[in-house]
Amino acid sequence: MSSQQSISFIGSGNLAWHLAPALDNAGFVVKEVYSRNPQHAERLTDRLYQAEVKATLDFSTSESTIFIISVSDDAIKSIAQEIILPEEAFLVHTSGSQPLAELKFAATNNIGVFYPLQTFSAQKKIDFKKVPVFIESTNQETDGVLLLLAKSISNQVRKISSEERKALHVAAVFASNFTNHMLAISKDILQRNSLEFEWLKPLIIETIEKSLSIEPENAQTGPAKRGDLEILDKHLEFLKEDEALTEIYKVVSQHIVDRYQ
Amino acid sequence: MSSQQSISFIGSGNLAWHLAPALDNAGFVVKEVYSRNPQHAERLTDRLYQAEVKATLDFSTSESTIFIISVSDDAIKSIAQEIILPEEAFLVHTSGSQPLAELKFAATNNIGVFYPLQTFSAQKKIDFKKVPVFIESTNQETDGVLLLLAKSISNQVRKISSEERKALHVAAVFASNFTNHMLAISKDILQRNSLEFEWLKPLIIETIEKSLSIEPENAQTGPAKRGDLEILDKHLEFLKEDEALTEIYKVVSQHIVDRYQ
Repeated sequence: MSSQQSISFIGSGNLAWHLAPALDNAGFVVKEVYSRNPQHAERLTDRLYQAEVKATLDFSTSESTIFIISVSDDAIKSIAQEIILPEEAFLVHTSGSQPLAELKFAATNNIGVFYPLQTFSAQKKIDFKKVPVFIESTNQETDGVLLLLAKSISNQVRKISSEERKALHVAAVFASNFTNHMLAISKDILQRNSLEFEWLKPLIIETIEKSLSIEPENAQTGPAKRGDLEILDKHLEFLKEDEALTEIYKVVSQHIVDRYQ
Repeated sequence: MSSQQSISFIGSGNLAWHLAPALDNAGFVVKEVYSRNPQHAERLTDRLYQAEVKATLDFSTSESTIFIISVSDDAIKSIAQEIILPEEAFLVHTSGSQPLAELKFAATNNIGVFYPLQTFSAQKKIDFKKVPVFIESTNQETDGVLLLLAKSISNQVRKISSEERKALHVAAVFASNFTNHMLAISKDILQRNSLEFEWLKPLIIETIEKSLSIEPENAQTGPAKRGDLEILDKHLEFLKEDEALTEIYKVVSQHIVDRYQ
């Protein structure tokens, strides 16, 4: 199996934006990018060596062997049913939450999942070497292609099941999406009081360094951890005009109190 | 004002554990440590050059000029009323949430707050140079002492009011305590499914680096940000046997959806 295999992307969102150039640089050739919005597809092909915008899901005459569906989770199944593939094509999706079975009605038996566990935003460059990639497939040949693909860009490649991947994705939502949102809330509170988010940065960096070095359950501090109900009440009083923040403060603090007290 | 001033600590918790040696190393002399639990006090004096365990709150014959109350928030007021101080003593507390007024019944007019904004755990060393210290006091002389104290250990010293400090503390709870707890939850979910917390570490590091470099509101990703209700439902189904996690997942996701959709 040569690493000169060609790839087509279906979808041009944040993940494709980072993954397609990484594969291009790793010796694969990204040939085509399809997107419902051709301008989006073109923005991505502009970052690639040889890729062209593809206007339809008819890939019957494509030179590609690997087809990567990187679209919103609810669109995967219908694209898998609609896409017309060349013979012997490998078809994979990149979703954390959708099972491999989303591809079962596709016109190929070589189906798989290629899930890079990372947070992707257009503005921020990613070093794929450190991004764990989780793969799953239905047969050895597809496994081989996915391993080749994953190892070409990442130092951490693992095979896991659809069920395990779902658990991983839920855990990642807490660890990444919710963590980032806690920072957004914190910035809001500061701005409403004309204080600087900048001032919290040393605290945030230390919090994460400590959590990763001594494990989160040993790193927990704060009024809820100490069971200091008087301070929790003061903070709720402070937040009382914002119902949503009050609710978040309550349920998260209660969960911390229940765990440590 | 010489930097040879002596300091007494009332309290020997995580903050005193880190702050007392930092001041000792910055040219002050920590002379005494009082704690309700004398063994705790002794553990701290063992880390200091000249400090001794103090058994009572009668400091009338103390050589110290600066008295730092670093105890749980609900104990500050009663200690301030009970403590017997030498003349001209400076009395400060280190709480984020308690106002300066907690000290108003103390037997000195030189009262202040010395609030280092950081998360302190016994196991993890702290570089105080990068810890912002927020000070407040009732008169210029006390301001001078607090500035000297704060600048001896930190590069970031600011004067803020009790109200501002409370907002800062609430923001810090979200940014540090809640963020760390999201990581603890994430680790729990992985362990229940025999998966490794280690695998999430590159994601967590990237999440925080990105959030601090492009601001949290630009760094948000995930199903709630995209308004992908189908995935939110799947995740809730996955979490359904854990009521508390279901509730946390719901309220945080709803807050993200409301903000970005």
